[in-house]
Amino acid sequence: MKIAIAQLNYHIGNFEGNVNKMKLAIEKAKRDSVDIICFSELATCGYPPRDFLEFKDFIGLCEKAITDLAALAQDIAIVIGSPAVNPVPEGKDLFNSAYFLADGKIQYVQHKALLPTYDVFDEYRYFEPASKFEIVNYKGKKIALSVCEDIWNIGNENPLYTICPLDEMMPMKPDFVINVSASPFTFTHAQNRIDVLKANVSKYKIPIFYVNHVGAQTELIFDGGSLVISPNGNIFDEMPYFEESFKIYKLEEVSEGKQSKEQEKEKIKLIHDALVLGIKDYFGKLGFTKAILGLSGGIDSAVTAVLAARALGEDNVRGLLMPSQYSSDHSVNDARQLAKNLGCQYDIIPIENIYQSFASTLEQQFLGTKADVAEENIQARARGMLLMAMSNKFGNILLNTSNKSEMAVGYGTLYGDMCGGLSVLGDLYKMEVFALAEYINKDGEVIPQNTISKPPSAELRPDQKDSDSLPPYEILDEILFQYIENRKGPAELIAMGHDEKLVKRILRMVNINEFKRYQTAPVLRVSTKAFGMGRRMPIVGKYLS
Amino acid sequence: MKIAIAQLNYHIGNFEGNVNKMKLAIEKAKRDSVDIICFSELATCGYPPRDFLEFKDFIGLCEKAITDLAALAQDIAIVIGSPAVNPVPEGKDLFNSAYFLADGKIQYVQHKALLPTYDVFDEYRYFEPASKFEIVNYKGKKIALSVCEDIWNIGNENPLYTICPLDEMMPMKPDFVINVSASPFTFTHAQNRIDVLKANVSKYKIPIFYVNHVGAQTELIFDGGSLVISPNGNIFDEMPYFEESFKIYKLEEVSEGKQSKEQEKEKIKLIHDALVLGIKDYFGKLGFTKAILGLSGGIDSAVTAVLAARALGEDNVRGLLMPSQYSSDHSVNDARQLAKNLGCQYDIIPIENIYQSFASTLEQQFLGTKADVAEENIQARARGMLLMAMSNKFGNILLNTSNKSEMAVGYGTLYGDMCGGLSVLGDLYKMEVFALAEYINKDGEVIPQNTISKPPSAELRPDQKDSDSLPPYEILDEILFQYIENRKGPAELIAMGHDEKLVKRILRMVNINEFKRYQTAPVLRVSTKAFGMGRRMPIVGKYLS
Repeated sequence: MKIAIAQLNYHIGNFEGNVNKMKLAIEKAKRDSVDIICFSELATCGYPPRDFLEFKDFIGLCEKAITDLAALAQDIAIVIGSPAVNPVPEGKDLFNSAYFLADGKIQYVQHKALLPTYDVFDEYRYFEPASKFEIVNYKGKKIALSVCEDIWNIGNENPLYTICPLDEMMPMKPDFVINVSASPFTFTHAQNRIDVLKANVSKYKIPIFYVNHVGAQTELIFDGGSLVISPNGNIFDEMPYFEESFKIYKLEEVSEGKQSKEQEKEKIKLIHDALVLGIKDYFGKLGFTKAILGLSGGIDSAVTAVLAARALGEDNVRGLLMPSQYSSDHSVNDARQLAKNLGCQYDIIPIENIYQSFASTLEQQFLGTKADVAEENIQARARGMLLMAMSNKFGNILLNTSNKSEMAVGYGTLYGDMCGGLSVLGDLYKMEVFALAEYINKDGEVIPQNTISKPPSAELRPDQKDSDSLPPYEILDEILFQYIENRKGPAELIAMGHDEKLVKRILRMVNINEFKRYQTAPVLRVSTKAFGMGRRMPIVGKYLS
Repeated sequence: MKIAIAQLNYHIGNFEGNVNKMKLAIEKAKRDSVDIICFSELATCGYPPRDFLEFKDFIGLCEKAITDLAALAQDIAIVIGSPAVNPVPEGKDLFNSAYFLADGKIQYVQHKALLPTYDVFDEYRYFEPASKFEIVNYKGKKIALSVCEDIWNIGNENPLYTICPLDEMMPMKPDFVINVSASPFTFTHAQNRIDVLKANVSKYKIPIFYVNHVGAQTELIFDGGSLVISPNGNIFDEMPYFEESFKIYKLEEVSEGKQSKEQEKEKIKLIHDALVLGIKDYFGKLGFTKAILGLSGGIDSAVTAVLAARALGEDNVRGLLMPSQYSSDHSVNDARQLAKNLGCQYDIIPIENIYQSFASTLEQQFLGTKADVAEENIQARARGMLLMAMSNKFGNILLNTSNKSEMAVGYGTLYGDMCGGLSVLGDLYKMEVFALAEYINKDGEVIPQNTISKPPSAELRPDQKDSDSLPPYEILDEILFQYIENRKGPAELIAMGHDEKLVKRILRMVNINEFKRYQTAPVLRVSTKAFGMGRRMPIVGKYLS
């Protein structure tokens, strides 16, 4: 029996595009006499469709896609994820389901039982959990179909769910498992996935074919890396990460398990590749080609520019250098050097006149006040406005260059340097941005060395340094990581050895700046807890603030 | 038996403040020999605590609050909502529970079974549903405790859930029901709530004491209106809306059901009062007192200014009039008249010089291009920057004045007129803003009549009118309402008699402007589907766009 995995890049709501992609894969599979071809979770509509699922019209298009694909299921079976309508009035209106299409029609639909509703996931918002589990008989084989999370409740110390779907299916003695997934990237997730699949195989002793979605949907980057695991626990194959792929496997060879392949997983390389795909798909799926960003000579804008150039091509990236009276010479020089290294277009646009026009316009109102954050923010906002003016005039999407450390503590100007359609580095702590810069320069200088080695500064007042108002990034990042990713409270952080006063100051900064992050661009997610849809905090909350 | 309902305004994470408020109510109740005092859902920590629930530290503070309150439960019983830790590893870590405190300790904890996970609600993100239902015996009475949604699965045509918790309790023959709720305002919700409570009483024939939270938590406005329903279906009492209240009821009188009270519910009055509370609590709970906003002479900023003055006092509202070369005389006059009517401070700050500074700074880049949306947006952003500069300098929170119609179709400038810490009118369609203006003027002119009667205009180019690029608001609002609130797709809208081309154009505008709304301030919610946390849409989606 030949089983094909089509690891494809879907686009939410683009039914025609998604179905056409799948048709091509089905034709290819038929030419190679494949018995079963597998697509990923909610492949008809793309994952996550979010509240589009509440539109009957949208569900009708999902059903039409399934009907169209079923018509192609001649001499081949198709396994594909798509919503299914709940036939009874009680409970949610939909299921998240795996369809088995063969002989031109729907043969079986297995619903998902474990509905991730945490972090970035909202599945119980839309779907009723499955209560029935069957297996599919096809060409003499018994197949257990499952959807994503349904294989994840295994061997966990603190299981999120009370049942384990494959346990329900095993009495029916399936020959192998097909799991259709849409499992987004974090820099530890590919390894977790392998561990979970191995735990399943170790328990059930049958092969698993695991089909993941690849491609970015706004902030979520689906990394692919579909897997075939042999009953002996060997990784029979691990498909490529961050790109589409199509492969055919012989069930008999998989069952023998004579090969074991595993790709290296290096954190910063994975993040680099994920962000490049994230930018590429954000632009491509919105129908844009060109980016613009401010180049300050600092490391955040430099790394963002490199990633953008790699995603979109250097001709599609334009940098604005917008010096003020507080900008040091090296800022402009470093930024210019970066643009030259990349081969990107750049403009030098001083903000002095704009700043002066604000100062004189507000002269009467500001009379007798001291220069403070208001004046600093005018500079940052003048830059934001220039970038947006260029964006509006020439159709370049503005890339935001904020990192996670500064977004966390509110070290940025709303409507200023926090402008942008997409936040590229918003899920990377400052120390991770440094590591990414080093990775980018591994084969020679792309980012000017001075940009990496000089002390970070916002340059909004004379001789300003980040370290004037923030602790060293090594310490700041560690406290933020424990608070944000690991949800450690003040007592736990102090017990870890961190200074009490510092912990309270940092946690307070994180919490009182919730209002700024609420208005930030979507952040490409690479960690287990990114700002945005996966971290939902009250703005008006008193806790720790 | 005397039962007190304390309808209080809690503050998320402000454990000390919340517990102190409840202590005062308990003391008062004790003085009046109350047998049972009832507080609302998650009253210890405030509702909705969102991801704070993932912090052990936060849960520890909830538990401490319960311990502190239990110590006061001497000669009185206390019913209160708070999270409870799930003792088994399987399933979510918490329950959303009603505690019964008496004789100085926790006597019983009833968990919530129906966990709203739709619209603005995310309860299954945090909580495990209850599977066990008991009743409480106290002073010879049997009491059914329930939490909010648990009484809502009754007589629905399309029930969201598969069980009905009170059905499980009825075999134990309770004498009455206490329901602790945190049920946020929409302009139809108070009536729905009465209908649901009456349906319960009609089925179970016992009194219900329904305790709601009052007060705003960022975008959600809890309206109070706690209810006592007699077994004969009469509304024994309906507590005030939008304010704290404390009342004592004799069970015997409630059981007799000799009185029937019901307050009038007029849509625009409810919305008015809700928004005033929404502004008041946003500022008060963040520790701010002063607002600033742009006054354009148009109706949106006028209505926002009136609501702000009513919430914060006219001395705490400052208006900026920021005319450009395209502003008509009446704009400045109308805005000035409004400020005078309200007694608010106002400044006239022309934006001409700032606009010219941008134009000259970008002269080289814009050379040979035609004036377009880029130039229009510079004006809107210059105003946004002036408002933010004043906000930063003087500590006034900027109020956003966008309405729902323009937010829907993207008729606004990101980082320009879309700036602000709180969106006051973002859940009101333009026609509703007009109705609110008329309501405000019902006893005499507050908003200048010319502001209401003149055709709406953004005044970003000569003689611009909203009607140049948008259909009449009567039609636009109806299509938007059907699409947003009722999730009608294009085919359904066309079948209702709307023009096909117009429907497609409007739906496309709504969808392609998701990126703008993503970066908008939190919107005070008054409808069943507001922009923000209750409407979760992909930015990178192709559907209808």
